[in-house]
Amino acid sequence: MPADFTLSCPVPIQDYPQVTLAHGGGGRLTQQLIDRLFGAAFRNPLLDQKHDGAVMETDGRRLAFTTDSYVVHPLFFPGGDIGSLAVNGTVNDLAMCGARARWLSCGFIIEEGLAMETLWKVVRSMRQAADAAGAQIVTGDTKVVDKGRGDGLYVNTAGVGVVESARPIAPAQVVPGDVVLLSGDVGRHGMAIMSVREGLQFESPIQSDCAPLVEPVMDLLQAGLEIHCLRDLTRGGLASALNEIAAVAAVQVDIDEAAVPVEEPVRGACEILGFDPLYVANEGRFAAFVPAREAERALQILRGHSQCQAAATIGVVKKADAGLVTLKSRIGASRILDLLSGEQLPRIC
Amino acid sequence: MPADFTLSCPVPIQDYPQVTLAHGGGGRLTQQLIDRLFGAAFRNPLLDQKHDGAVMETDGRRLAFTTDSYVVHPLFFPGGDIGSLAVNGTVNDLAMCGARARWLSCGFIIEEGLAMETLWKVVRSMRQAADAAGAQIVTGDTKVVDKGRGDGLYVNTAGVGVVESARPIAPAQVVPGDVVLLSGDVGRHGMAIMSVREGLQFESPIQSDCAPLVEPVMDLLQAGLEIHCLRDLTRGGLASALNEIAAVAAVQVDIDEAAVPVEEPVRGACEILGFDPLYVANEGRFAAFVPAREAERALQILRGHSQCQAAATIGVVKKADAGLVTLKSRIGASRILDLLSGEQLPRIC
Repeated sequence: MPADFTLSCPVPIQDYPQVTLAHGGGGRLTQQLIDRLFGAAFRNPLLDQKHDGAVMETDGRRLAFTTDSYVVHPLFFPGGDIGSLAVNGTVNDLAMCGARARWLSCGFIIEEGLAMETLWKVVRSMRQAADAAGAQIVTGDTKVVDKGRGDGLYVNTAGVGVVESARPIAPAQVVPGDVVLLSGDVGRHGMAIMSVREGLQFESPIQSDCAPLVEPVMDLLQAGLEIHCLRDLTRGGLASALNEIAAVAAVQVDIDEAAVPVEEPVRGACEILGFDPLYVANEGRFAAFVPAREAERALQILRGHSQCQAAATIGVVKKADAGLVTLKSRIGASRILDLLSGEQLPRIC
Repeated sequence: MPADFTLSCPVPIQDYPQVTLAHGGGGRLTQQLIDRLFGAAFRNPLLDQKHDGAVMETDGRRLAFTTDSYVVHPLFFPGGDIGSLAVNGTVNDLAMCGARARWLSCGFIIEEGLAMETLWKVVRSMRQAADAAGAQIVTGDTKVVDKGRGDGLYVNTAGVGVVESARPIAPAQVVPGDVVLLSGDVGRHGMAIMSVREGLQFESPIQSDCAPLVEPVMDLLQAGLEIHCLRDLTRGGLASALNEIAAVAAVQVDIDEAAVPVEEPVRGACEILGFDPLYVANEGRFAAFVPAREAERALQILRGHSQCQAAATIGVVKKADAGLVTLKSRIGASRILDLLSGEQLPRIC
C-alpha cells in the first residue's frame, strides 16, 4: 500500500470540489489530476514513468500496454471518425514506446437510440484502421446506457505491442544536447473538429491528420538510430507534450516557432477561433528527441513517409534545474511556453 | 479483409434500426450484436473463440488479454463500488482464461461536475482491489464530458495476464461427459444493485458478491485438474453463460435447479421484483466444466476458499446437434433454459 494512501483527497477540494471540463483538456488541471489523484492512488514504478504506455518485462521479452477512451464530438469528421481515431490513437501510443501494436481490445459505451448503421460504420472503420496498422482486435465489451446518459457512442481501446527498441524510449531518457524533431505540420485534428462544430466553411475542409505512426517509428528503430523519447502530440498539442517531457527529464526545451510547420487553413481557423496551433491536438504527428548527431539521418528517414514529408528540427534541449519550455517567436523574442490552465478544446478525442 | 466486410449492416436494421437497452442486457440481442455486427467486422481466430478474453502466444509464452467497460448505477452499492467492480471484473475474466492478472489499464469517462471526493473514493477502491488480486494498474486515461452526456463516472479496465494453464481453457473444449460445477450461490450482485435502486428494505442489505476469483482458479490449476472451461457469471447470470458455452461447444447442458444455491434474501428480492435468479448477474461466481472424475477433487479445492464454500455440482453435459440448456425444476419437470430476449437488468455492471 502506498505511503500516502490513507490521506484524504489529494486534489485540494476547496479549489476543485468537482471535476470540470478543463480537467480533461490536456493542460495544467489534467496534469494535476493525473499526478496528484491517480498518481497517489495507483503509484508503482511502471505508472511513474509517465509515458504514453507502460513497458512491462516478462521472461526477458518487453511488452508495451496502453489505453485511451474516446469521446470525440462529432463522431464523424473530415479525415476520420471515432473508430479510426480510437485504433490509431492506441497504435500510436504503443509506437511512442518503441512498440508495434499487435493486439487491441475495444469497449463500447452506446447511448440507447444510436443508429445501428452508425455503429456499423464505426466498427468497419476500426477494422480498416487495425488492418492498416497490422494489429488485430481480439477482445471487446459492449454496454448500453439510457438515453441522455451518453452522447451516441464512447469507445475505449487498449493495446498490447511488442517493444522493438533495445534501449528504453521514455521522457526520463531526454538529456541536454538532444534536438527535438517534429514529424509534420501541427493543428489539423483539433481544427478539423472545431471547424465542423463551429460551422466554419473553407474552400477545402481541414482534414484531420489521424493516421498510424508505427511505420515511420519502426523505420527509425530499424536504422539503429539512438532515440531518447517519442511522444505523439494529441490533446494539448505540441506545447503540452513538450512541457510534460521537460518536467520529467528536468531540462529546458527551446523551440523555434518559425520551424514549426502550420498549414495556412489551420492557421486561419486558429485565428478565427482564438486558438494557438501549438496547443491544438494532432492525431498523426509526433516529436522525437534524439542526439544532435542523429538528426539529419532521422529526418531523411521520416521524410520518406507520406505523412512525415514536412518533418523538421524545431528545437534543442538544454540543462536546467527544472522543466521549462521556451519559444523563440518569428520576430525573435523568447517567451515561456507553459501548460494551459483552463479548458481549450473539450472532447477533441 | 474478411469476406463479408463490404456488406451493409449485418444486424437487420428493419428490425433494429437503433441500439436498445436490451442490446446491452446480456441476453439474445447482446449475442446478436456481438456475433453479427462485431463478429463480422473484426473476425479473426482469437476473437472467434468467444471467450471472456483472448489468449495470445508470443515467443512460446501465452498471455491473456481482456477488457470491460463499467456503467453501473449507482456508483456505490452494498459490497462494492464501480472501482472494485472494474478491477475484479477484469481480474476474473483473465482468471477464466486460466491466467493470473498482472497488469491493468484504466480509462475514466467523467461527467463534468462529479465530486472530486467521489473520484478519489473510486480510485482508492481500485487500488485496494488491484492489491488484493496481485495486479498493478500501470497505464490509464481520463476524459471529461459535458454535463448531461454521462452519468457521473464510467470506468473501463483492460488487463493482461500470464496464462498458467498448460491446456486450453475455452468453451470449445467442453465435451459430453463433463459436469458443471458452480462456485457459490447466485444472484447477489444484481439484487444488491436492484434493491438499492428500488429502495427495498431488508433486515440486512443484500451484499454484492464482487470479489477476485483468481486464487480459487489458480488452486484448481496447481492441483493439476483437467479443466475444460471456466466462465464467470456476470451480466445475464448463470443461464446466459451456460447458453453461450453450450452454443459454442454444440452440446446439451442439463441443470438441476435444486442444486443451484440461492440465498433466501436474494430469492425474496427476485420474487418481489419479478426476476429469475438464474439470469441475475454475479460478480464473484463462476462455472467450471470438468470431466466427471475430477468433480469431487475440484469441489474440495473450491470449498477451501471462503467465497466458494457453497460450491456444488449442478449439471451434466450431453451430446447434442446444437447448443441447448435444460433445467430440471424442483418438482421434477424439465424445460429449456433459453437466452432472454428482452432487457433484464440495465446498467448492472
